[in-house]
Amino acid sequence: MDDAALQNCIRECMQCVQACNRCYYSCLNEEDPGMMKDCIRLDRECASICFYAADALSRGTPFSASIAELCAQICDACGEECARHEHEHCKRCAEVCRSCAEACRRIAAPAA
Amino acid sequence: MDDAALQNCIRECMQCVQACNRCYYSCLNEEDPGMMKDCIRLDRECASICFYAADALSRGTPFSASIAELCAQICDACGEECARHEHEHCKRCAEVCRSCAEACRRIAAPAA
Amino acid sequence: MDDAALQNCIRECMQCVQACNRCYYSCLNEEDPGMMKDCIRLDRECASICFYAADALSRGTPFSASIAELCAQICDACGEECARHEHEHCKRCAEVCRSCAEACRRIAAPAA
Amino acid sequence: MDDAALQNCIRECMQCVQACNRCYYSCLNEEDPGMMKDCIRLDRECASICFYAADALSRGTPFSASIAELCAQICDACGEECARHEHEHCKRCAEVCRSCAEACRRIAAPAA
Repeated sequence: MDDAALQNCIRECMQCVQACNRCYYSCLNEEDPGMMKDCIRLDRECASICFYAADALSRGTPFSASIAELCAQICDACGEECARHEHEHCKRCAEVCRSCAEACRRIAAPAA
Repeated sequence: MDDAALQNCIRECMQCVQACNRCYYSCLNEEDPGMMKDCIRLDRECASICFYAADALSRGTPFSASIAELCAQICDACGEECARHEHEHCKRCAEVCRSCAEACRRIAAPAA
Repeated sequence: MDDAALQNCIRECMQCVQACNRCYYSCLNEEDPGMMKDCIRLDRECASICFYAADALSRGTPFSASIAELCAQICDACGEECARHEHEHCKRCAEVCRSCAEACRRIAAPAA
Repeated sequence: MDDAALQNCIRECMQCVQACNRCYYSCLNEEDPGMMKDCIRLDRECASICFYAADALSRGTPFSASIAELCAQICDACGEECARHEHEHCKRCAEVCRSCAEACRRIAAPAA
C-alpha cells in the first residue's frame, strides 16, 4: 500500500478525534444541549471510529481497507450533521470530517 | 495476584461499560438533556476507563494496580453523580459503578 | 432491531476480547513466540475490533450493521488462524471467535 | 489548566501511539521475536494508555491529572525497555516515550 496515503490517513483520523471531541464537549456546554443531541451523539461515534482506525492503521493492520471504509461512512454522517449548525466548533468539525473521509477513501479503494 | 479477584474485576468493568453507555444514551433522550449534562459527561468518562481497564487486565498488564486505582476513582465520581438523579437508568448505573469501584480496589490494594 | 440479538452480540464481543487477550498473552509466553506471530497479531486485531464493537453497540450506535459486519470479518480471520494451532488457548480462542462472528452476522444482516 | 500544555500532551500521546505501534509491529517481524517479547508487550501497553489519554484529554476530561500520571508511568516503563535494544524502531520509540512522559508530567503536576 501507498505509505504516504496511510500516514496521511492516520494523521487525519487523529485530527478528527480532536475536532469531534472538542465539538462534543462544546455542544454539551451550549445553552440548549437538547438541540444538539444528534451532533453530540455523532461526535462520539466519529471520535470512536477514528481512534480505532488510527490505532489499527498505525500497527499495520491487514484489514485497512475495510476499516477505512467504515470510518469514511461514519465521518460522512458526522460531517453532514455538523454542517447543519452555525457554531464555530460544528463548522470546524464538519470540515475535518470531510477531509478525513477523503483520506480514508484513498485507503479503502486505492486509485489504480 | 488473586486470579478470582482479577476475573471478577474484568467482569465488573465490562458490566459498568454497558450500564454507563445505556445511561448516557438514555440521558441524551430525556426531555431536557441539559439537566443531565454532568451525568452524560461522566457516563462517557466512566465507560471509557472501564473499557481500557477491562482490556488491559484481560491481557495481563503489569500495571494492574495503578490502572484499577484510576478506574475506581472515576467509577466513584460517576456513581455519585448518577445517584443524584431519579431516572431508573441513573440509579442502576450508580449501583454498578459502586460495585465496580469495589472490585477495582481489591486489585489496586489487595488485602494482606 | 432485535434487542436480544444485540445484547447477545455485545456479550459475545466481550467474551471474545477476553479469549483473544488471553491467547495473545499465552502465545507471547510460548517457547517460540516467532512461530505464533500471526496468531499474536490477529489476536490483537480481533480484541481491538471486538472492543470497539461492544462499546459502540452498547451505546446504541446507528452504525451497528456495518460495525458488526467488519467485526465478523476480523473474527473469522482470527478464528481460522487460531484453529491451526494445538495450544489450548488457541483452540478456545478459535471457538469463541467463531461464535462471536455468528452473533455479529445476526446484527449485520438480520433474518427477515 | 494551561491549554498549551494540554494540547502538547495530546500531540505527544498521539505520536507515542504511532511510535509504539510501529515498534510493536517491527519487533514481531524481527528474526527472533522471542527475544523482543517484553518490548512487544510494553509497546502494546504504552500505545493503549496513550490512546486512552489522548482521547480523554481531548474531550476535556475532569480527571486529566490522574490519567496523565498513569500515562507517564507506563511511558517510562516502555521507554526503558526500548532503550535496551539496538533496533532503530526501539531507539526511536524510547525517545518518543521519554518525551511523552515529560509532557504527561506537566499535566499531572503543573508547575506553580
